[in-house]
Amino acid sequence: MRNLKVIMAFKGTDYHGFQRQSGIKTVQQTVEEAVGSVLNEKVTIFGCSRTDKGVHANEYCFNLKTENQIRHRNFLRGINDRLPDDISLISCEDVPLDFHARYDTKAKEYIYLIHNSESKNPFTRDLALHYRRPMDIELMKKGAEHFLGTHDFLSFCSKNGEKENTVRTIYKFDIEKNDTAVKMTICGDGFLYNMIRIMVGTLLWINEGRLTPDDIPSIIEAKDRGSSGRTALAHGLYLNKVFY
Amino acid sequence: MRNLKVIMAFKGTDYHGFQRQSGIKTVQQTVEEAVGSVLNEKVTIFGCSRTDKGVHANEYCFNLKTENQIRHRNFLRGINDRLPDDISLISCEDVPLDFHARYDTKAKEYIYLIHNSESKNPFTRDLALHYRRPMDIELMKKGAEHFLGTHDFLSFCSKNGEKENTVRTIYKFDIEKNDTAVKMTICGDGFLYNMIRIMVGTLLWINEGRLTPDDIPSIIEAKDRGSSGRTALAHGLYLNKVFY
Repeated sequence: MRNLKVIMAFKGTDYHGFQRQSGIKTVQQTVEEAVGSVLNEKVTIFGCSRTDKGVHANEYCFNLKTENQIRHRNFLRGINDRLPDDISLISCEDVPLDFHARYDTKAKEYIYLIHNSESKNPFTRDLALHYRRPMDIELMKKGAEHFLGTHDFLSFCSKNGEKENTVRTIYKFDIEKNDTAVKMTICGDGFLYNMIRIMVGTLLWINEGRLTPDDIPSIIEAKDRGSSGRTALAHGLYLNKVFY
Repeated sequence: MRNLKVIMAFKGTDYHGFQRQSGIKTVQQTVEEAVGSVLNEKVTIFGCSRTDKGVHANEYCFNLKTENQIRHRNFLRGINDRLPDDISLISCEDVPLDFHARYDTKAKEYIYLIHNSESKNPFTRDLALHYRRPMDIELMKKGAEHFLGTHDFLSFCSKNGEKENTVRTIYKFDIEKNDTAVKMTICGDGFLYNMIRIMVGTLLWINEGRLTPDDIPSIIEAKDRGSSGRTALAHGLYLNKVFY
């Protein structure tokens, strides 16, 4: 038996997220069909994370088990030939049999992209949030600093999220602006349902004067979704990297 | 009478180029309809250049004449609200009545984007050429150097191009690679039909060993389209900037 660890990129626009759901198009189902067709067996892939409809991935990781002795290069080529243009396998490697893409995750890095301009960007329609108002990046950075460290992020979890432990550690929350492109890079040991989109939406509220950076600690303390800002749209979000 | 100079970006994927043609969707027709609807009059826009089907623009320039006293901000907003997501007006200004976006052009800058990797990039399907073989950037730069200066570029003009003067001056032909993204920036006083795409295709032939960099001068001298390389696909090409 082999355990293959695979890295792939996908544009999530036309998928109802990663996880297989009956009757609708998901990344998992699409990839499992392509893999099954190349390996000539029924295959389950184990993804590192669920993703929302419309969310993208630069380096999503999954693993799968097979007896097939196919070479890495042929595996990648064969499957990429069968995958649609919006999903692409980047690399694969053999890993120990006990490796699991989801349970062995040490940290995940996400990127949130914003096109900040009065006028639309014809090239980033599904790839970045279009935000028209001027952005005070320094102000938003001050808000983002309060997310760093270990906190109970219940206020930043959508109500239909799981009711498990809601304590998470955020290692990095960078915001940079280059002309009209704003890029937020967020790294943490794990994220609750919609957590990044709510953190981004809360920073946008700070930009709009509806909250101040120093409101963040009390929002965290409140442990109440009603105290934080809006949920930023899914199409600006990218799972950028998974660390093991 | 006013003369408005307008800068716009468009993603050319779904258009048969800029120039109006009866019965098919073009950028010119789409913009003229939106402008006409906002100004409430029939308007002709004068573009800086024809473009091929699938070619994009970061800063395309056109001008139009109107008696309407609409303010710039309202002009941009009103038309952007009516334009589809793949066309966006960026700015406009009043210019002297004798300004013409095409005839007054001093130079144009184009960009050609290549995704250079074995695997597809799900985010650049219509936005960059996918080129799988390894690229020798230094070798291609040596070839590109021979394009600089004033030459008769008949060898780099598709046969259905106009039979006018085929002498052009190239000011810049830069090639840079950043991870899998290759960007060529070409600036000149003007370009023949398909000229940039044939220059790029010829550099790809150099990369593939079908030509050497030092073959370029004799290809130019030949004044024969049969001596140069293939025509690189349209969807990697962007009109980047127009100088007046």
